[in-house]
Amino acid sequence: MNLAQALFTPRAVALVGASGDAGKNTARPQRYLKKHGYAGRVVPINPTRAEVLGERAYPSLADAPEGIEHAFVMAPGDAVEQALEDCGRRGVPVMSVYSDGFADAGATGAARQARLAARAKELGVRLLGPNSMGVVNLPGRLALTVNAVLEMDAPPAGTTSIVSQSGTMLGTVLSRGAARGLGFAKLVSLGNEADLGAGEVVALLAADTDTRVILLFLETVRDAPRLAAAARAAHAAGKPVVAYKLGRSALGEALARSHTGAIAGSDAAVDAFFRDCGIVRVDMLETLVEIAPLLAGRQPPRLSRAPRVAVVTTTGGGAASVVDRLGLHGIETVAPGSDAPIIDLTMAATPQKYAATLDALLASPECDAVLATVGSSAQFHPQLAVEPILAAKPAAKPLAAFFTPHADRSLALLAKAGIAAFRTPEACADAFAAYFAWRAPREAPRLPPVELPREKGALAVMASLGIEVAPSQVARAPDYAHTVPYPVAVKIHAPGVEHKTEAGGVILGVMGRDDLLRAAKSLPGGEVLVQKMESGLTEAIVGYRDDPLVGPVVLVGAGGVLAEVYRDSVLRMAPVSAAEAEEMIGEVKGLAVMRGYRNLPKGDVHALAQAVAAMSRLALVPGRPVAEAECNPVIVKAQGAIAVDALLVMKE
Amino acid sequence: MNLAQALFTPRAVALVGASGDAGKNTARPQRYLKKHGYAGRVVPINPTRAEVLGERAYPSLADAPEGIEHAFVMAPGDAVEQALEDCGRRGVPVMSVYSDGFADAGATGAARQARLAARAKELGVRLLGPNSMGVVNLPGRLALTVNAVLEMDAPPAGTTSIVSQSGTMLGTVLSRGAARGLGFAKLVSLGNEADLGAGEVVALLAADTDTRVILLFLETVRDAPRLAAAARAAHAAGKPVVAYKLGRSALGEALARSHTGAIAGSDAAVDAFFRDCGIVRVDMLETLVEIAPLLAGRQPPRLSRAPRVAVVTTTGGGAASVVDRLGLHGIETVAPGSDAPIIDLTMAATPQKYAATLDALLASPECDAVLATVGSSAQFHPQLAVEPILAAKPAAKPLAAFFTPHADRSLALLAKAGIAAFRTPEACADAFAAYFAWRAPREAPRLPPVELPREKGALAVMASLGIEVAPSQVARAPDYAHTVPYPVAVKIHAPGVEHKTEAGGVILGVMGRDDLLRAAKSLPGGEVLVQKMESGLTEAIVGYRDDPLVGPVVLVGAGGVLAEVYRDSVLRMAPVSAAEAEEMIGEVKGLAVMRGYRNLPKGDVHALAQAVAAMSRLALVPGRPVAEAECNPVIVKAQGAIAVDALLVMKE
Repeated sequence: MNLAQALFTPRAVALVGASGDAGKNTARPQRYLKKHGYAGRVVPINPTRAEVLGERAYPSLADAPEGIEHAFVMAPGDAVEQALEDCGRRGVPVMSVYSDGFADAGATGAARQARLAARAKELGVRLLGPNSMGVVNLPGRLALTVNAVLEMDAPPAGTTSIVSQSGTMLGTVLSRGAARGLGFAKLVSLGNEADLGAGEVVALLAADTDTRVILLFLETVRDAPRLAAAARAAHAAGKPVVAYKLGRSALGEALARSHTGAIAGSDAAVDAFFRDCGIVRVDMLETLVEIAPLLAGRQPPRLSRAPRVAVVTTTGGGAASVVDRLGLHGIETVAPGSDAPIIDLTMAATPQKYAATLDALLASPECDAVLATVGSSAQFHPQLAVEPILAAKPAAKPLAAFFTPHADRSLALLAKAGIAAFRTPEACADAFAAYFAWRAPREAPRLPPVELPREKGALAVMASLGIEVAPSQVARAPDYAHTVPYPVAVKIHAPGVEHKTEAGGVILGVMGRDDLLRAAKSLPGGEVLVQKMESGLTEAIVGYRDDPLVGPVVLVGAGGVLAEVYRDSVLRMAPVSAAEAEEMIGEVKGLAVMRGYRNLPKGDVHALAQAVAAMSRLALVPGRPVAEAECNPVIVKAQGAIAVDALLVMKE
Repeated sequence: MNLAQALFTPRAVALVGASGDAGKNTARPQRYLKKHGYAGRVVPINPTRAEVLGERAYPSLADAPEGIEHAFVMAPGDAVEQALEDCGRRGVPVMSVYSDGFADAGATGAARQARLAARAKELGVRLLGPNSMGVVNLPGRLALTVNAVLEMDAPPAGTTSIVSQSGTMLGTVLSRGAARGLGFAKLVSLGNEADLGAGEVVALLAADTDTRVILLFLETVRDAPRLAAAARAAHAAGKPVVAYKLGRSALGEALARSHTGAIAGSDAAVDAFFRDCGIVRVDMLETLVEIAPLLAGRQPPRLSRAPRVAVVTTTGGGAASVVDRLGLHGIETVAPGSDAPIIDLTMAATPQKYAATLDALLASPECDAVLATVGSSAQFHPQLAVEPILAAKPAAKPLAAFFTPHADRSLALLAKAGIAAFRTPEACADAFAAYFAWRAPREAPRLPPVELPREKGALAVMASLGIEVAPSQVARAPDYAHTVPYPVAVKIHAPGVEHKTEAGGVILGVMGRDDLLRAAKSLPGGEVLVQKMESGLTEAIVGYRDDPLVGPVVLVGAGGVLAEVYRDSVLRMAPVSAAEAEEMIGEVKGLAVMRGYRNLPKGDVHALAQAVAAMSRLALVPGRPVAEAECNPVIVKAQGAIAVDALLVMKE
């Protein structure tokens, strides 16, 4: 049977561990199914009762009637494993597990989860969870969940679906959205993702006719390749995918790991990953709740200049609070036909004039989005306040509203009409920033596999990838003979010494043989690396990392200690083409200097881009044996870019 | 008569230009005064009606009865000037002007405003506005305003007062606060601040017994010294002052200027100003609405390490959304007696246990603030959900709550109890960050006046302030004789050439006389500056600016092009002591290198601090003739810090 059907529209569900005490959490699914009008059959499974909340109960799934399409398991301990066996035997295609004590409970629980997942696979039963709060299908009237948000009367059905690793936050998005009239389609609490993960669920929603926008609340990424494929499928189906992901700060990342048992990844890599597969990332929780109408039915913008928003307002201060924030996101405002920053209708606002202004802006090539700001009337005369916004002709260009007062009714009126409206200036600006940062999924360059040379030296590996490296030789005591032309740098030759400069292991500007002997003898080990001195206009760093969460990424940043302090670098999923690498370089602030800053001479951006693209090809080595690699510094000259030091860390 | 009394509790008010058409804006004050229970006498002034909305009307203020204590003027054009004359003649102590067409309307309007303010001073009438929406005193039942927010039934009275340069945003804060149970005391719409400004109004509120916290919505700063003095008075009275100020982005700053006619200042200088006089700055609009209970009755924290918040939660995902954000603000979380990042009571939460945990944390020396997070129950069982939070013993340490669902009733219950509660994780984290950045007003060092030397050379002025500068001499054609020891730098000697290096006007490393002649002849002008070559561990920039909005500030940052690109500098109000300058240096990221980074040698922080303090003494020159000054670069050595180039711009 079809997975989507069993998950979202089962004709009969079993509730394993359903409580007869209506006040208990484990009684909720049965209460909620009834409350929200589930039309299928509900079969409570309870070993000690013949009847649960008015329905006939059965002691086990084995005893239940035929035709169960989705079992929701709340029973503790071994009852989960038993329920799985019963599902397998009775042909129940999907089992959702609320019970915890799996990967959420340390190593023993993780092992138990692995066994459960393996057995489910053997039995052909698909598993949601464990530690999942279940599934809700609002248009389909299925509330198969323990999430208390379903206490709500009649949450509005809509076309936005939510997939969440946190059951609570699934409820948060539904609760906050519903309170202001935003409707939802399908909601899935992923739990520990032992089997069904974010990727596969997004793929189901990409194919779901009730879903137009897919929201993700993520604490980690467990199935990057699958999620990427699903996001691409969603894009192909015209459905934007939006993610709010925790772990932007080190503190948040540590908490997410302790909370989910996930492995450590880098947030910058997650950013690169989302961009790569076309997922829109929002910064604020409320933006996740509010952004869907801004994106629904739209395509990623294609701009070759800074994005421009036209702001129409009846309140200067209200518009200013959004505009100030847009500016922080690098967005400009325009008032076509005027050099004022906004279009202030305060003194001359009639609904007709307001609506005509919006239509003109939506049709104007001079702006890329339109924001309508409304003051007090949004609170006390909602119908009047939103009338001109509702009257605006739908356009490919996004239209959004911000109301300065508490204005739930105005927000709900726009929600009903499918027009984006924001409660706070910050979420409004965050949503515009997310929209303008939205990219179609990238077509990764199709390149042949790459072979790593046998030599172990990191610089040699870099050279084999196609990165130009400074000529060097190992010179040995007692005479330290070499053929590198002077001036040279003499470096300690001990693999594993990082930050050689700070460790006092680099002597620069060695001009001749006497100098060389003195320098070489001052370093330990009886052998040194003699390298041609390179000097250029600026230094860059080029790096590669196989991120444990999202896979191979390539990095370019400004070189030197300062750039390291400022963490000024740009990441993309590897491999990248040289053209993509040039784009990356264009985004590194500290490399502004080499791109032409005041009258300073320009560096060879193209050569640096070639080096970045070459480094990124480490992603093409079969089996991806490299964990991490770095050329630091890469000396960028007026012509050429030369790596003078490198690091290579293989996976264990 | 007392200004505060006339402004906030007048016994009789005149409404100049009051409309008899209840649907008009100019009918609002009369409607609102009645609606909200004003006990004094209301006197409409209308040239064409003997009665307005049931009250006897008078053709002009001249004809009005005795005893008017506050005139609110809505009439357009010359009627404003006429009303002022009448106020003067009749002894009306305060006149609020809603009418526009003054500084909000270009140069002509600004001149009109200046005349109005000058005449008011002559007449002894205090002026609020023009372009002010008026005054509200909720406990005093005065709604003397055109702001439509007063359409609201019974906005809750409280102890937080608001002062706003935007009339709309005054309504925004009241509307949003009231919707979730937050009460307010006095609300003042400043308008154009022709006479009464933010500073004087804050001073009134500092002395107001109904006010415990003062909120500011600012588009600009027009009276920095007065505002600073008022903020200090408020601090002395135990009343926190909180500001949300637009103009953080260049776009927002430009809009604020176009909107208010204000002059251009720097946002970093505004930050320094707020810090200096103890004003708490919030980043988000909603934080301004929500933060008062977090600060009321509290003092600025005094921490010598990163701030620590203990987070208690019944929902992992909900706590994580705040914690992730706290981490972005550099705040740590602790769970005393455990190494978990938070205290998760999900599985074991009873109200008793929750309350006991909160009390233990509020008493623990291991954390500096406590956050309680609550999930769905906050929406469906508000009384139960907030019970443990209400039960917590009041402490000097702040306690705040975050509810994951839409939970207006829970928010209102905490508001009523005076406990801070936040609707979004972002505003919650922003409020904690603002609290931890809160400083008591600074006592500026008491220093004698400083005299500027007559020499015009910028380096000479720096030297006279006490900054060590590289020895240099002007050398002239044809022989370019000098006595500076080699190696030297040869620089173009033309006042006004900025960025000499990029302009090709600096030749470094000149080793002897022949080199010197070659170098000097390659530069135009027949004279050059010969300067001893200095080299050190790192470069810094030390600057001074007399900010047009907030006054003299001193700056220290990392030197070089990269630091300029990253805008990495720290500002304080000038003058500063050397100890304060050391603190500033400690906050410059790019100077981490000289403070000890890996094994790199340390620079002389103390010497750089002396240079910063010396530069800051430009604020002590009588008349403050210097607009801007800069030493760039300052070469920081293992011992000493030497300026090698300087710039001095005098005011015009």
